[in-house]
Amino acid sequence: MELYRSELSQHFVDTFIKKMEFTEEEFNYTVSFFKRQYVPRKFFYLKAGQIAMQKAYINKGSTRTFTMDEKGREHILNFSFEDWWLADFESYHTGKPGTKYIQAVEDCELLCISKEALEKLEIEIPKLKALFEMKQKKMIFSTMERLNEVKTLTAEERYLNLIKKHPQIFQRIPLQYIASYLDIEPQSLSRLRKRLSTK
Amino acid sequence: MELYRSELSQHFVDTFIKKMEFTEEEFNYTVSFFKRQYVPRKFFYLKAGQIAMQKAYINKGSTRTFTMDEKGREHILNFSFEDWWLADFESYHTGKPGTKYIQAVEDCELLCISKEALEKLEIEIPKLKALFEMKQKKMIFSTMERLNEVKTLTAEERYLNLIKKHPQIFQRIPLQYIASYLDIEPQSLSRLRKRLSTK
Repeated sequence: MELYRSELSQHFVDTFIKKMEFTEEEFNYTVSFFKRQYVPRKFFYLKAGQIAMQKAYINKGSTRTFTMDEKGREHILNFSFEDWWLADFESYHTGKPGTKYIQAVEDCELLCISKEALEKLEIEIPKLKALFEMKQKKMIFSTMERLNEVKTLTAEERYLNLIKKHPQIFQRIPLQYIASYLDIEPQSLSRLRKRLSTK
Repeated sequence: MELYRSELSQHFVDTFIKKMEFTEEEFNYTVSFFKRQYVPRKFFYLKAGQIAMQKAYINKGSTRTFTMDEKGREHILNFSFEDWWLADFESYHTGKPGTKYIQAVEDCELLCISKEALEKLEIEIPKLKALFEMKQKKMIFSTMERLNEVKTLTAEERYLNLIKKHPQIFQRIPLQYIASYLDIEPQSLSRLRKRLSTK
């Protein structure tokens, strides 16, 4: 089913038209390969063991990406919001079953493109390849920053970093998920918030 | 000064000739842009605040990459050995001052290529661009795996992972650096090694 321009977020349109300087023709052609997919709150977009066969642009909503250890405990690696691309990156590129769970935290409206279509398009429109190369670089920056943060900062510093980056996060993501992301107990996070808000 | 074939590690030659199927001509042309650089043990290849203007292939030796927090404590993000490429990735790609220290743990012999030369070569030889794109993907896989490891595994599990990946690491890297990489005290690492070796 065709996607109408009015159904695409401004961010999505701007990414291609303004940032990557797609012509109208290139943009319409690209969009023709996208399909809309709804993932209601608490449902999974992807589970460990599945193979990532597509990339998904978050048109609306938020997700959490986590791994599960042998004891069944969840470890949240990151949250994603509007204008992010979702995939188990390693599974997508290697074609092997993934190791991550991606679950909708809010109702999600995704714009998905299959790996097959994207690979074809990246050859036809080199600008599209350049877009995802740029995204990959940013992904390395942010993953390294996150690794350094986890190793270096205290819980309080990690918390302050998070609300600096995502001031609205507590309005959108339940506290226990944020606590898991920060590697602290939900009670400690509540106390921390209280203490810092009265400063 | 020209680099002779006999001075290049077999890994370096194989990467270009076997893996990326460079012709002899492409290979010799590419090598002509590389310069040798020695970094003696304990000296720095790069410091925080400097801009990464080149990539370096480790022909021989090992390094540690770390950040320093406000209290002057070092946090080791990774070790690098032969056949790895060194750079503060973010600084190299953004052109901004970096945040990482890269120090030689053993005497290092590096084969360096400037950003300017590499960007020119990547246009002239698309296979070279493909090589670094592949390296970038692997970098995302390994950084994500490391992030997950730091969040998910116990010190003992992280230790076992490390010696599985680098069985010779204790012969090459001082124990206190390995302890910092694993985020445990050197004494705890000694006890852990003793306990596991007598199992």
